[in-house]
Amino acid sequence: MLDTPAYAAQSADAPLAPFRIARRAPRANEVLIDILYCGVCHSDLHQVRDEWGGSIFPMVPGHEIVGRVAEVGSAVTRYKVGDSVGVGCFVDSCRACPQCRAGEEQYCEQGMTATYNSRERDSGEPTYGGYSTRITVDEAYVLRVPDGIPLERAAPLLCAGITTYSPLRHFGVKAGDRVAVVGLGGLGHMAVKLATAMGAEVTVLSTSESKRQDALALGAKDFAATRDGEVFRTHRGRFDFIIDTVSAQHDYNAYLGLLKVDGTMVLLGIPDPTPLSAFPLVGGRRRLAGSMIGGIRETQEMLDFCAEHGVASDIELIDIRDINTAYERMLKGDVRYRFVIDIESLRRAA
Amino acid sequence: MLDTPAYAAQSADAPLAPFRIARRAPRANEVLIDILYCGVCHSDLHQVRDEWGGSIFPMVPGHEIVGRVAEVGSAVTRYKVGDSVGVGCFVDSCRACPQCRAGEEQYCEQGMTATYNSRERDSGEPTYGGYSTRITVDEAYVLRVPDGIPLERAAPLLCAGITTYSPLRHFGVKAGDRVAVVGLGGLGHMAVKLATAMGAEVTVLSTSESKRQDALALGAKDFAATRDGEVFRTHRGRFDFIIDTVSAQHDYNAYLGLLKVDGTMVLLGIPDPTPLSAFPLVGGRRRLAGSMIGGIRETQEMLDFCAEHGVASDIELIDIRDINTAYERMLKGDVRYRFVIDIESLRRAA
Repeated sequence: MLDTPAYAAQSADAPLAPFRIARRAPRANEVLIDILYCGVCHSDLHQVRDEWGGSIFPMVPGHEIVGRVAEVGSAVTRYKVGDSVGVGCFVDSCRACPQCRAGEEQYCEQGMTATYNSRERDSGEPTYGGYSTRITVDEAYVLRVPDGIPLERAAPLLCAGITTYSPLRHFGVKAGDRVAVVGLGGLGHMAVKLATAMGAEVTVLSTSESKRQDALALGAKDFAATRDGEVFRTHRGRFDFIIDTVSAQHDYNAYLGLLKVDGTMVLLGIPDPTPLSAFPLVGGRRRLAGSMIGGIRETQEMLDFCAEHGVASDIELIDIRDINTAYERMLKGDVRYRFVIDIESLRRAA
Repeated sequence: MLDTPAYAAQSADAPLAPFRIARRAPRANEVLIDILYCGVCHSDLHQVRDEWGGSIFPMVPGHEIVGRVAEVGSAVTRYKVGDSVGVGCFVDSCRACPQCRAGEEQYCEQGMTATYNSRERDSGEPTYGGYSTRITVDEAYVLRVPDGIPLERAAPLLCAGITTYSPLRHFGVKAGDRVAVVGLGGLGHMAVKLATAMGAEVTVLSTSESKRQDALALGAKDFAATRDGEVFRTHRGRFDFIIDTVSAQHDYNAYLGLLKVDGTMVLLGIPDPTPLSAFPLVGGRRRLAGSMIGGIRETQEMLDFCAEHGVASDIELIDIRDINTAYERMLKGDVRYRFVIDIESLRRAA
């Protein structure tokens, strides 16, 4: 086993601190990756603080991993030493259910094996994520990071990127469509970039005016503050598609009224249950849907799309020693638009 | 103008009683229809009692109309005297908006002109429905009732039929799909027949066991009572599609859990707002949608489909003088599955 520096939380109320984990040498189908960068997702914080229940401690978070292949198993065919690769939210799944066979491993009927805070399918050992210097993963769950995307800006694509790309593709957003993006955080800023790159005309809906300039700079054609409620009158029936990245409770009905007939609103967050009126759905054959990350095949497609269209995440690169401060700032929405840990800082500290 | 016997409510708390209305002689594009049968829809009762607000009195309800063409205007090309025809929930729309041009007049951006409790687009005069012996309608909003469907059993197809047919088609239900129908009333019994005729495997979900035999007789392959909640465990992730005909408040989240990944649940009723969790949507990319009747083109397609597949409504034919009693029975769910007024009884009484 390979003794590996990491940062871990020992319990739900402990800060992240240095820790050492064992990574295995690659088996036949696996690659060992030297991690270079790892994005900081809001779900890292939820899980570290056990806000979803069932957290496994010690926990090494991180599922927006980019690095270079350091070693390959004997049967690996897709990657070679030195390749730039990524690992996203999961590292395994049952591979046999209809969802896995369809390349939609995120909806695996037996449940995907998450990159961290999960258990290996064979050994039952906990999985540890990207706040560490290396990781060993089956090549079938590894992505190729194409040339042209700066690696540190590619890391958040592995979660924030695919989470927004997948519903845009799955629900058929196309050039000329009017797309509203609700909330301009890590997910929202990727949704704006990706939908714009797909040729859609994007409007950002955010509570306050403070994000107007950023929204327009990211590619949005329009911006509307939702706090005074006026937008729900002026933009009524305007959008083909709404991508809703907000995790705090909000009134779905008001947003559904902004959709055209046959429009679709997709929830990416999971707010507490909120009263839903059937009226905007029935009266305009509208759809309220949800979406969760994306499959391996589609994640690769997304990375290639980003390389082709010059899309990457806007990031703030941080030292691993600043991770606890970064969490506090993330809680306040004080990040434009994703913290990414420079894993070199972990190597130096170790 | 043609003096015409009808039944009307004079106010929200008045019973229906004999009344006389004026129908116009057909204009160039219009046909005059001698009404033979008119179905009794639950929405008749809602509107007669002003439960949705804004009711126009006196009100002559009825939007499941079947009759014979008695006279045609000079420019009418589709129908001739003696043809069996139907009129559904609307008799006009703007004809210019994207929805009207797409043949989805029910979602007309200016609002469709309802068959009753609405106002003519030109004159502003109230529209009067099918609880009357004749009606004058633009041929573009008239349906042909194909041979082979008993006319009295065709009447409910004009609302209950198209309301269930349209979402089954629009959301792509196909042979072999597993479809759940929630609620076995006027809409539900049509949903069972239509989905079965489309080759789907239908399960009826109803509060109590009392409708099991009926459900199976109508063509359902399976039945489950929902009251004890067990079905939400045993049938978890089972259905491709749920058609929800229930107008009383119920827990959408429990039903959404019965859908497969990528499944769709369509609401046809408008219960009071109900707490919705994003979890079943996000966790399985499920969709909650709504649907409202259907356009003229699709209504014709539905009638032709019913003729081809031997589908018609199960009805109880009543005398117009029994309409108030029928409303009381409908409120108790005591109808299998649609009251239809024999309009001859109105002609005789007049």
